[in-house]
Amino acid sequence: MSSLILNRRDIEFMLYEWLDAEKLTELPRYRDHNRETFDAVLDLSEQMASERFANHNKLNDSNEPWFDGERVHMIPEVKVALDAFGEAGLVAAGQDYELGGMQLPTVVEKACFAWFLAANVGTAAYPFLTIGNANLLLAHGSREQIETWVKPMMEGRFFGTMCLSEPQAGSSLADVRCLAEPQEDGSYRLTGNKMWISGGEHSLSENIVHLVLARTPGAPAGVKGISLFIVPRQLVNADGSLGERNDVVLAGLNHKMGYRGTTNTLLNFGEGKFQPQGKAGAVAYLVGQEHKGLVYMFHMMNEARIGVGLGAAALGYTGYLHALDYARERRQGRSVTNKDPSKEPVRLIDHADVRRMLLAQKAYVEGGLALNLYCARLVDLEREALDEERDQHTLLLDILTPIAKSWPSQWCLEANNLAIQVHGGYGYTRDYNVEQFYRDNRLNPIHEGTHGIQALDLLGRKVVMHNGAALELLTQLILQSSQRAAAQPELAEYAAELDAALYRLLDVTGQLHAADFLELTLANASLYLETMGHIVLAWIWLEQMLVAQGHKLAGQPDDFYLGKLQAGQYFFRWELTRTGPWLDTLSALDSTCLDMRDNWF
Amino acid sequence: MSSLILNRRDIEFMLYEWLDAEKLTELPRYRDHNRETFDAVLDLSEQMASERFANHNKLNDSNEPWFDGERVHMIPEVKVALDAFGEAGLVAAGQDYELGGMQLPTVVEKACFAWFLAANVGTAAYPFLTIGNANLLLAHGSREQIETWVKPMMEGRFFGTMCLSEPQAGSSLADVRCLAEPQEDGSYRLTGNKMWISGGEHSLSENIVHLVLARTPGAPAGVKGISLFIVPRQLVNADGSLGERNDVVLAGLNHKMGYRGTTNTLLNFGEGKFQPQGKAGAVAYLVGQEHKGLVYMFHMMNEARIGVGLGAAALGYTGYLHALDYARERRQGRSVTNKDPSKEPVRLIDHADVRRMLLAQKAYVEGGLALNLYCARLVDLEREALDEERDQHTLLLDILTPIAKSWPSQWCLEANNLAIQVHGGYGYTRDYNVEQFYRDNRLNPIHEGTHGIQALDLLGRKVVMHNGAALELLTQLILQSSQRAAAQPELAEYAAELDAALYRLLDVTGQLHAADFLELTLANASLYLETMGHIVLAWIWLEQMLVAQGHKLAGQPDDFYLGKLQAGQYFFRWELTRTGPWLDTLSALDSTCLDMRDNWF
Repeated sequence: MSSLILNRRDIEFMLYEWLDAEKLTELPRYRDHNRETFDAVLDLSEQMASERFANHNKLNDSNEPWFDGERVHMIPEVKVALDAFGEAGLVAAGQDYELGGMQLPTVVEKACFAWFLAANVGTAAYPFLTIGNANLLLAHGSREQIETWVKPMMEGRFFGTMCLSEPQAGSSLADVRCLAEPQEDGSYRLTGNKMWISGGEHSLSENIVHLVLARTPGAPAGVKGISLFIVPRQLVNADGSLGERNDVVLAGLNHKMGYRGTTNTLLNFGEGKFQPQGKAGAVAYLVGQEHKGLVYMFHMMNEARIGVGLGAAALGYTGYLHALDYARERRQGRSVTNKDPSKEPVRLIDHADVRRMLLAQKAYVEGGLALNLYCARLVDLEREALDEERDQHTLLLDILTPIAKSWPSQWCLEANNLAIQVHGGYGYTRDYNVEQFYRDNRLNPIHEGTHGIQALDLLGRKVVMHNGAALELLTQLILQSSQRAAAQPELAEYAAELDAALYRLLDVTGQLHAADFLELTLANASLYLETMGHIVLAWIWLEQMLVAQGHKLAGQPDDFYLGKLQAGQYFFRWELTRTGPWLDTLSALDSTCLDMRDNWF
Repeated sequence: MSSLILNRRDIEFMLYEWLDAEKLTELPRYRDHNRETFDAVLDLSEQMASERFANHNKLNDSNEPWFDGERVHMIPEVKVALDAFGEAGLVAAGQDYELGGMQLPTVVEKACFAWFLAANVGTAAYPFLTIGNANLLLAHGSREQIETWVKPMMEGRFFGTMCLSEPQAGSSLADVRCLAEPQEDGSYRLTGNKMWISGGEHSLSENIVHLVLARTPGAPAGVKGISLFIVPRQLVNADGSLGERNDVVLAGLNHKMGYRGTTNTLLNFGEGKFQPQGKAGAVAYLVGQEHKGLVYMFHMMNEARIGVGLGAAALGYTGYLHALDYARERRQGRSVTNKDPSKEPVRLIDHADVRRMLLAQKAYVEGGLALNLYCARLVDLEREALDEERDQHTLLLDILTPIAKSWPSQWCLEANNLAIQVHGGYGYTRDYNVEQFYRDNRLNPIHEGTHGIQALDLLGRKVVMHNGAALELLTQLILQSSQRAAAQPELAEYAAELDAALYRLLDVTGQLHAADFLELTLANASLYLETMGHIVLAWIWLEQMLVAQGHKLAGQPDDFYLGKLQAGQYFFRWELTRTGPWLDTLSALDSTCLDMRDNWF
């Protein structure tokens, strides 16, 4: 039932009433589009997510893919769904016409993709990874590489992966050991292992295109010696037909708490099981130049991280809608002011504490989704803007990305936790859907850069880069919003609170970077990330409240807008207020965690 | 490995250095005991938990009990463990000698039982429920009922359950529909369904003794018409041998997110599958008097709820120890001040952010365990005290119980969440243990009274009962601790912060109860529970810091005490500070959640 996946009314509010996606059609790239074409793809996505993806979300979880030592097996519904997705042209929705794409703005594409993430994140992960892989090759691959690998991905025939981590290295890419040795024909032979590779093996597509970080012989130590390679599961002949099996072999599937529909793999490259073209090593093709692998990868990281944030928000959102539905149907207990047992029990939603849990979920998931769609629109503006403006969009995207990734991973996970609580004992059973959403979402604070890594990125790099230009730009935008809100009597209170929190954050940022000891500056980076996250989300909520208040003043106080205003009020009174003590702790340069010693534990 | 279950040094610190469990041996009931006898049972528990319980914790989760329509099957290790537990006399550890018990103080018994809960909560739940059932019958059953049902439970031959919820009623006991009709011989025939019954069916014991809440014909509506019945799975003959099968039939097992080793059941009573003694209905025996069922049940509720809090703390604790162990072994990444990739990576624990996550876990789990052991000692004091003192202990136990249950259910669950995060991707796989701890612990905010129900109990009842006498008593105790701490220069800062938070809480409590609208008073009860919880835990931490500081001043600043002081500092600087904005929200009588309307969602 699509009404339990996402709220279409809210998606349209964000796209059209807040982010003004229609205005993007004034840009040359999107000139063929209009609200009708956007809505048509939204309709298609909503329907397909409901009929082809949501239908096997639970089955995918209870019957996870299994490996018989030779092949990976999975329930057939996954391939049916992904074939339909590919045939509808959705893999290429955002791409150029010449690649078979629709040239859909990223903000609309992401709004469409959110339906699939919410309906069945395990199945949606395959196109998610494929699109990310293709975007990287489109930016940095050769014309021939695009022809050979990207075009079949756009057609839904090949799937893609990203191979960064290794068993010994995890988040520490400086310690990548995979080795790619150059061959006379310009290709490379790659050996080593990659861990945590989602979609690393399956029979869903004709081929799997791995993008692999590896070192070349004599490369500098650390991240500056990493190159990027295409390593296909099957070689491809000059005419595009599938060739020999490459030496990429599944060593085993990881068995996870959630996200079970997506195969997650340990892959061996060049271990000797296959000898493509009669030689040892997995055949690999360099992307761009040697030693620039991480630069290329990071070029696409913003988009991948926004994708993770979007997925976290989508999972939180569907959990919220399930909890709301349950709270409206289930009757239990009585009002605290009328406990007469002869009366029929009230609905769960009639209890203030249940409304608290629903309101918190609403504030988290609508806020998280809104932030990620805001960032997606920045991707559109960045792509099409003139040079000077482009730099501004890039700066803003750079500083917002760690928050867009981490905030929903933390708080929309908390929304899933509350969705279980609203269901009571039923929510704890596998007969209902919410416990799976929680388990699925728990991955998001871990992959694509953990919470702690995002925090170091934000405090150690993003807020200080270009002499703090990104933070300065974000500050100006927030102040513009709060000035507009200050002019509205019903919103002035929130504008003042947002300003106060923002100014304190700026002070604290200066204090932290004035510390003469880098370890102390960065010791509480996670708390800084969480603090700035809440302030940014308060801004996102104020932006939504401005739109809703506008309708209210214009005499259209419909329930939807009143709900936005109440959720915004919740965010300001119950959430933004949390930042006070956090700012105090940061401001004190508290060293409790830094000072803690191993042997005191 | 017992060192990953609980920290024995910490258990001994709590029992002997803080709670002075040895002093209890001055009471007549415990006069045969001394530290050696306590330690012997701790040794036994630690060893058995490690060898017989921890050994199948994972297997119990991946091979949950299954029902073939006739019988429930489970892995054989469960019965081996429980037979050993029963044979060692641990079911009766806290009971009178004449019942075959050890007359162990509750505080020591709970410390011992914590090992089993941490090692394997799924298996430990069976004796947990049996002990609770037996304690209720010992308090309110007849001599004959004790002889027939309690004695075999003490010997480990019969197991017990508590049957409160029904499918339509959940937390709302006022709506219980099970009906018990009196028979000429003084027994009853009971019909109806019970939901969420843990341990409701299995082949682990000779018999299962269900304690069932039901109505009698013509009983008043609501909770005042509920009576309590013994309904055994098998009838028992006059000579104690097993008789006919009673009409208690398993309708189905619930399949849960975690806690999978414990069967959780929907039971049908008197549906007609069996006709004991040739008549319809399940044979049931009234406990005490009609219509007093809920009073009896609540008499034991404090102990059951402390047990839940203890289990939540134990699960958090073992997760913390697993994360600590992993963080010490796993090398990954480099210091922010020396990123030289040619150097060996540092250990995870060398990163300040990982120490933050470990310190938070330590603060949550040691605090949660300490609070529950404090409450367990109150149970001992309450039992043995003279009348006037007894009232004081009862009052204190009454007000602390909702916190002792809820606080670890919330924050030690968060500890499990952080334990996953410390493990990174590995923590998300079922190859490691921490994801199961999280899934197991997620039950605790739901059962034995949800978080919201505890909150209403605390704010609506406990803080106002007897004209606020319990809150007054708790206040005096907290102030005594803070006065002692104020005299120590290194602790004075914390004493002042605790006092300030406490006085604000008292003010806010008055404000809330001065509101002339009960719904407004109680609307934010959950936030009140969380606020008071953090203040009580700060007190528990200050108490532990006082002991540690005493050793430090006495020239024994060993690592253990320094760790206690640092964790306490963490609690005050990172946790107690959260209460500021919560108190503001409460004090403002914020009505955001109360005002939210169904159709605005």
